[in-house]
Amino acid sequence: MEQIFSYAHLFDFTFNIFKAIGCSDNDATTATKALLAADVRGIDSHGAARLSGYVRLWEAQRINATPQIKILHETPSTAVVDGDSGLGLVVAPYAMQVAIDKAKNAGTGWVSVRNSNHFGIAGYHAMMALEHDMIGMAMTNASALVAPTFSIERMLGTNPIAVAIPADKQPAFVADFATTTAANGKLEILQRKNADTPVGWVQDAAGNASVNANELKQGGALLPLGSDREHGSHKGYALGSIVDIFSAVLSGASYGPWAPPLPAYVPMPQNMPGVGLGHFFGAMRVDAFRPADEFKQHIDNWIQRFRSAKPAAGYDKVLIPGDPEREMEAVRMQEGISIVDSVVEDLKKVGEKFNIVL
Amino acid sequence: MEQIFSYAHLFDFTFNIFKAIGCSDNDATTATKALLAADVRGIDSHGAARLSGYVRLWEAQRINATPQIKILHETPSTAVVDGDSGLGLVVAPYAMQVAIDKAKNAGTGWVSVRNSNHFGIAGYHAMMALEHDMIGMAMTNASALVAPTFSIERMLGTNPIAVAIPADKQPAFVADFATTTAANGKLEILQRKNADTPVGWVQDAAGNASVNANELKQGGALLPLGSDREHGSHKGYALGSIVDIFSAVLSGASYGPWAPPLPAYVPMPQNMPGVGLGHFFGAMRVDAFRPADEFKQHIDNWIQRFRSAKPAAGYDKVLIPGDPEREMEAVRMQEGISIVDSVVEDLKKVGEKFNIVL
Repeated sequence: MEQIFSYAHLFDFTFNIFKAIGCSDNDATTATKALLAADVRGIDSHGAARLSGYVRLWEAQRINATPQIKILHETPSTAVVDGDSGLGLVVAPYAMQVAIDKAKNAGTGWVSVRNSNHFGIAGYHAMMALEHDMIGMAMTNASALVAPTFSIERMLGTNPIAVAIPADKQPAFVADFATTTAANGKLEILQRKNADTPVGWVQDAAGNASVNANELKQGGALLPLGSDREHGSHKGYALGSIVDIFSAVLSGASYGPWAPPLPAYVPMPQNMPGVGLGHFFGAMRVDAFRPADEFKQHIDNWIQRFRSAKPAAGYDKVLIPGDPEREMEAVRMQEGISIVDSVVEDLKKVGEKFNIVL
Repeated sequence: MEQIFSYAHLFDFTFNIFKAIGCSDNDATTATKALLAADVRGIDSHGAARLSGYVRLWEAQRINATPQIKILHETPSTAVVDGDSGLGLVVAPYAMQVAIDKAKNAGTGWVSVRNSNHFGIAGYHAMMALEHDMIGMAMTNASALVAPTFSIERMLGTNPIAVAIPADKQPAFVADFATTTAANGKLEILQRKNADTPVGWVQDAAGNASVNANELKQGGALLPLGSDREHGSHKGYALGSIVDIFSAVLSGASYGPWAPPLPAYVPMPQNMPGVGLGHFFGAMRVDAFRPADEFKQHIDNWIQRFRSAKPAAGYDKVLIPGDPEREMEAVRMQEGISIVDSVVEDLKKVGEKFNIVL
């Protein structure tokens, strides 16, 4: 069912694949770190499992392995970055660094990105801010899979939001979540097991509630966080819309149902209103508000208080956003990363294209 | 059941009450506009219905009618504002204006506020940015009523988020929502009708699912957006936490379970880690990213595309965030504002304290 690989082993393999499609040493390193952060943190759908898809996008000339990333427009606290069709895994760290540099001078930095591609997990980019005693934010639009409240048409991607907040002695607060009830990766896990979804994750092509994990292949849609109107799906729809507008309308990327599809075999939408996928990054210097030590000690207090909130029957403790991923990272860096057989096969096939052995 | 009042009539009454507790003409005008924006937009729980509560907080010396609001610390794109225990209805517009002024120079402005009180509806403050061709954001922490995922302890308020985005010919996109499945005001409506809630809004004191609209009075809690872990309540919990940290930990207000209670009869928490309630405001100049006309035309296109998304059976059309409130505003400014009898009685009693007739 699964095979275990060390981080170092997966790193070398992935780095060599990115080199093979033409990335510079620097870009291949940047992309590999960003991609494998997903595997290490247990978000298996967004890591090595995506590598063959990125190679196919490169083959389809939708990904440029040697992009000239540039700033198109800027103010003291903002910038718009053009990713030149590069790997999102390379474009996003570049843009997040621009946000961090802006924050050093102006207190905060906000960067909207166009002409990019899927960037892995949002949390990785947001976390770049932590070592600078900054709060980091990252979001991205994505191929439309989600129906707005009252609709049966796929209009939005799973459009994740990540926010990373530095602490003192406690580990950082790191929230990273799709603005849908469940991310697409969770459906893929159920598909492999031939299992049903809970009610409230997907609807069928006619808009009826469904528990079919394969519903998206039959014209169905993912549901916004909240599931239905009565449980606040209009809020999840609003959140996904805000991510779409900040990432793609502010920058000049392609938005809503016109966002470029992830699979290379899906034709690009007609009459795209912008260029490529969009992202949005933010960095706020903590000491632009109050002394960093003071802030971080209060975050420690916040975390400790929430971790000790009275648990419900059957639960050990309340989790802080980022806890499960950090615990997974500690395990996987030590014991290795388990990859399901189908993804191992997929990686081997990608390797064969370039004579690179997994 | 209900009585109808014109906006002008309610305005005069509310203005005179604020004057009677000692507000200046300017502050009374600011507070009245902010408060009644809720009634006009149909968020009845946050408007005139709150007036007597504010007066009781003033009587309990928790609200200062003549605050010296000041900036404690600032950078080109940030500020921390101390509200001097003022009405949130006065402090919030001041702080939002600071954010707008910062954005004029630095591209964006971000203001965290401490030592404030409840500020009415978040959307009103966020919308202040629209006339400047800016995106506006507003959020606030609030008295703890919400249990984090896996917990039975009330740790967070309903902590709303508002985002207002300017359009060209279309009305603006205005999202304004509590980070819970349902806001407390919706429970109050069901209480009046003696009706049950849907499953997924509240839990009882032991953490069991409940449909009792009075559950909060019996030690129960509101649930984060997502309702339960399987439907993404950890995301709603993360969102509410982010609002708490941006509003209160960045500024030095009191956070989490220590947020000051709204009812004046509830004693203040022991060992508060900060001062008063906290808010967070943001303003982003659209042309800090791309030309404003171009952006607003694309927002028009975004809105028109989403409004014409294929509706599900039984629904006319897909709504854009802000549609229901704007439609309500058009009706109520013309036909008057209906106020339920219990609130009318409450207002009359407040008026009697100061010889002001409703």
